[in-house]
Amino acid sequence: MKNAFYAQSGGVTAVINASACGVIETARKYPGQIGKVYAGENGIIGALTENLIDTSLESEDDITALNHTPSGGFGSCRYKMKSLEENKAEYERLIEVFKAHNIGYFFYNGGGDSADTCLKVSQLSESMDYPIQAIQIPKTVDNDLPVTDNCPGFGSVAKYIAVSTLEASFDVSSMAATSTKVFVLEVMGRHAGWIAAAGGLVDDSIPVVILFPEVDFNEKAFLEKVDNNVKDFGYCTIVVSEGTKWPDGRFLAEQGTRDDFGHAQLGGAAPIVANLIKESLGYKFHWAVADYLQRAARHLASSSDVKQAYALGQAAVEMALAGKNSVMPAIIRISNKPYKWEIGFGELKDIANVEKMMPEDYISKDGFHITKKCRDYLLPLIEGENYPPYNGGLPDYVVLKKSKAEKKLPPFKI
Amino acid sequence: MKNAFYAQSGGVTAVINASACGVIETARKYPGQIGKVYAGENGIIGALTENLIDTSLESEDDITALNHTPSGGFGSCRYKMKSLEENKAEYERLIEVFKAHNIGYFFYNGGGDSADTCLKVSQLSESMDYPIQAIQIPKTVDNDLPVTDNCPGFGSVAKYIAVSTLEASFDVSSMAATSTKVFVLEVMGRHAGWIAAAGGLVDDSIPVVILFPEVDFNEKAFLEKVDNNVKDFGYCTIVVSEGTKWPDGRFLAEQGTRDDFGHAQLGGAAPIVANLIKESLGYKFHWAVADYLQRAARHLASSSDVKQAYALGQAAVEMALAGKNSVMPAIIRISNKPYKWEIGFGELKDIANVEKMMPEDYISKDGFHITKKCRDYLLPLIEGENYPPYNGGLPDYVVLKKSKAEKKLPPFKI
Repeated sequence: MKNAFYAQSGGVTAVINASACGVIETARKYPGQIGKVYAGENGIIGALTENLIDTSLESEDDITALNHTPSGGFGSCRYKMKSLEENKAEYERLIEVFKAHNIGYFFYNGGGDSADTCLKVSQLSESMDYPIQAIQIPKTVDNDLPVTDNCPGFGSVAKYIAVSTLEASFDVSSMAATSTKVFVLEVMGRHAGWIAAAGGLVDDSIPVVILFPEVDFNEKAFLEKVDNNVKDFGYCTIVVSEGTKWPDGRFLAEQGTRDDFGHAQLGGAAPIVANLIKESLGYKFHWAVADYLQRAARHLASSSDVKQAYALGQAAVEMALAGKNSVMPAIIRISNKPYKWEIGFGELKDIANVEKMMPEDYISKDGFHITKKCRDYLLPLIEGENYPPYNGGLPDYVVLKKSKAEKKLPPFKI
Repeated sequence: MKNAFYAQSGGVTAVINASACGVIETARKYPGQIGKVYAGENGIIGALTENLIDTSLESEDDITALNHTPSGGFGSCRYKMKSLEENKAEYERLIEVFKAHNIGYFFYNGGGDSADTCLKVSQLSESMDYPIQAIQIPKTVDNDLPVTDNCPGFGSVAKYIAVSTLEASFDVSSMAATSTKVFVLEVMGRHAGWIAAAGGLVDDSIPVVILFPEVDFNEKAFLEKVDNNVKDFGYCTIVVSEGTKWPDGRFLAEQGTRDDFGHAQLGGAAPIVANLIKESLGYKFHWAVADYLQRAARHLASSSDVKQAYALGQAAVEMALAGKNSVMPAIIRISNKPYKWEIGFGELKDIANVEKMMPEDYISKDGFHITKKCRDYLLPLIEGENYPPYNGGLPDYVVLKKSKAEKKLPPFKI
C-alpha cells in the first residue's frame, strides 16, 4: 500500500482547498488502498525540502472546513521546475523523497506550469524505475487550461466580478446626476480576458465597456463608446483587464509614470484608463483594483465552482486507484440549461504548456463586450451561492495544524 | 392630511435603500395620516426642479426589494445648499414645491451636510409660515455623525473590509514562501479612520498594519513594523485609509506623480505604500483599491446594519406622526454582548456640521492597530449576514419605475 502526495501550485483561489478536501476525504474512504496523504508545505518546495505535512493528523472537521476556506491551506508556491536537462537533480530528489516516504500517488493541484511538472514527474518515474502515478488536478482563475470545459477557481472569480460590476454600476448610476459618471474596475487576467468577460454578465440595461487583453486598446473608439454611454445612460462602467495592451504591445499599466524622486511607478490599468477619460471627456470618475480580493472571495463563491473543485479532487483519487497515470480529470459540459456536467479526463501531454484563449466569437464585434455565446458559456459557472459559516461577523475559515512527517533524508538545497 | 417628501443625499451605501423602504412601508401603514410619499429624483435636486417620484405607483414587492438593494434607488446627489443668506431663493423654492404638492413632512437621508440642509428647511418653514416637519435619517459609511452610536451604511462597509482583509491575508499567507509577502488594501475614509479600523477585526494571529488619517504617516516606524511582521509571520497585510497623510499634511496619494506627458497622476494611497515597501524592503507586493465596491457590497451586508437602516426610516415616520420636528432618529447602544440597541433621537442643531472622530483610545499606542475598546465597539456592527435573493447567479436587485408626479410650477434653474 502506497502513500499519496498532494501539493498546491501557483496563485491560490477561493476553491483550491475544496479540491484538497476532495482528495483527502476520498483517500480516507479507501484505507486499505491508500495510506497517508502527505501535503507539500508550500507546494512542490515541500517535496524538494522534505517538508511533508501529515494530513492524517488533521481532524475530520478541519479537513471538511477546507471546503469553505479560500487560499492554499498547505501553502502554495511560484516555483517552476526547470527542464529535465537543466536540472535533473531536482527531479531525482523528488523521486528520492517519494521513495523515502513510500509515495506512489502524486496529485498536483495547479495550472499549465503544474501540468508540465506533473508530466515530467511521471516520465522520470518510468525512466528511474520507481512507479509514481502523477495526476494533475486543474486549478486556475485564468480559466486557460485545455481539455477541461472550465477551471476550478474561475467560476468564483467570475461571480465576484459580475456581482461587483453590478453593485458598483448601481452605485455610480445613483451618483451620476451631479457627481461620478464613470467607474473603472480593474480585474486579473494577464493573457486572457476570461475574468474581464464576467463583467459582461450583468443585465443589458447596464452600460458596461470591457477592455480585453485579446483586443488592442483603441483609445479613440473606447472614448467614443464611453462618451455615448454617458450620454445615453447617464453613466458608464468599465471593466479593464490588467493585461490590456496598447497597439504597440505595452501594457496599459506600463505608462512610464515616475514619482517625485524619478522612480518608476507601478501603476494599475484602472487609474490610467480613468485619467484618459478625465482628460478627454472631463467626466468625474472612480476606480477600483480588485487584485487578490477577487480570487480570495470565498464569501461569494459560486456553488458550481465549489462542487466542481471538490469533485475533481475526488476524481483524481479515484483515477489513481483505477491505475491511471499522467492524466488530469476534467469538466465536460453536457448542457447549459439546465446546467449539467460530468467528469472526464485528458492526457497531460495534451495539457502541459497549452493555453486556451477566449474564442474570437466570445467577444463582440466592436471589441468592448461579450457575445451571447460567451454569456451562455459563463452563466452556469457563476450559478448558485455557497456561503461559508460565520462566527462573530466573520467567515469561520480553518487554519490547519500542519504537523510534519519526520525527515528521512539529508537536506537538499533548492 | 399632508404628503411626505423623501430624498437621498451624498454618497450612497449598501443600506440607504433599506431606510427608504422603512419610510415608505411605514407611511403606507398610516393611510389616514400620511398621503403620498414623494421621493426626490436625484436627491434634493428633485425637489428644486419639481422632479418628484410618486412612490405610490411602485408595487409593494418593489418597495420591499429596496431593503436588499444597494445604491440610491431614487438617485442621490452631491449638492450642498448654500447658506440662507447666500441663496435664499433656493430655500424658498423648496417651500414653494412643498406647498404646491401639499408636503408637510421632509425626510432627508444623509450625513452631516444633509443635517444642515434639513435644519435650514425647518427654520425657513417657520419663518415663511408654511409648516414642515423636517427629519433627518442618518446615513454615512464614514460613521462620523454625532448623537447616534453608529451610522447606517458603516456596518456593512466595515464587514466588507474585515472580510476582505481576512480573505486577502489568507491568500498572501499561502503565497509568501516564494512570492508575494505584502498585501496593501486601500479603503475609504478621507477624514476619519473608522473604515480602516475594520481591518483590525481579523484574528490577532493575522499581522495587520493599519494606516489611519488620524495618525501622521511615520515612514520609518511603518517600514520597521512591516519588516518585523514579514520576519515573524512570513507576510504582512496593510490596510491604508485614503485619508492617510504625510507629517506635512499632504495626502499619501498626492505624491506629485506625473505621467509621460507631464500630467498630474491621480494615484491611490495603496500603490504609494506598496512602492515604498518595495524600494526599502524589497518585498514582492500586491495591492487593491476597494473604492465603490466596499460601499455597494450589499451581497455582504451586515445584518445589524440592514435592520438599523430600516428601523431608522420607520422611526422617522413615527416621529413625524408624533409631531416631532428638526430631529434625527439615532441608534442608542445598550450593550455589546449580547448586542442590544434602541432608537433614540437628537436635535438637528446638535448634529449639523459636527463631525465625530475616532476616539484616541480606539487606536493602539504605536498608531498601527485598534485597541480592544475599538474592537468591542465595532464587532456588533458587522454581526449577522443578510443575503439578497439571487437569480441566475446574480443578486436580484430592484430598479424602480420612478414615475413622476405632474409638475405644477414653472421651471427653476439651479
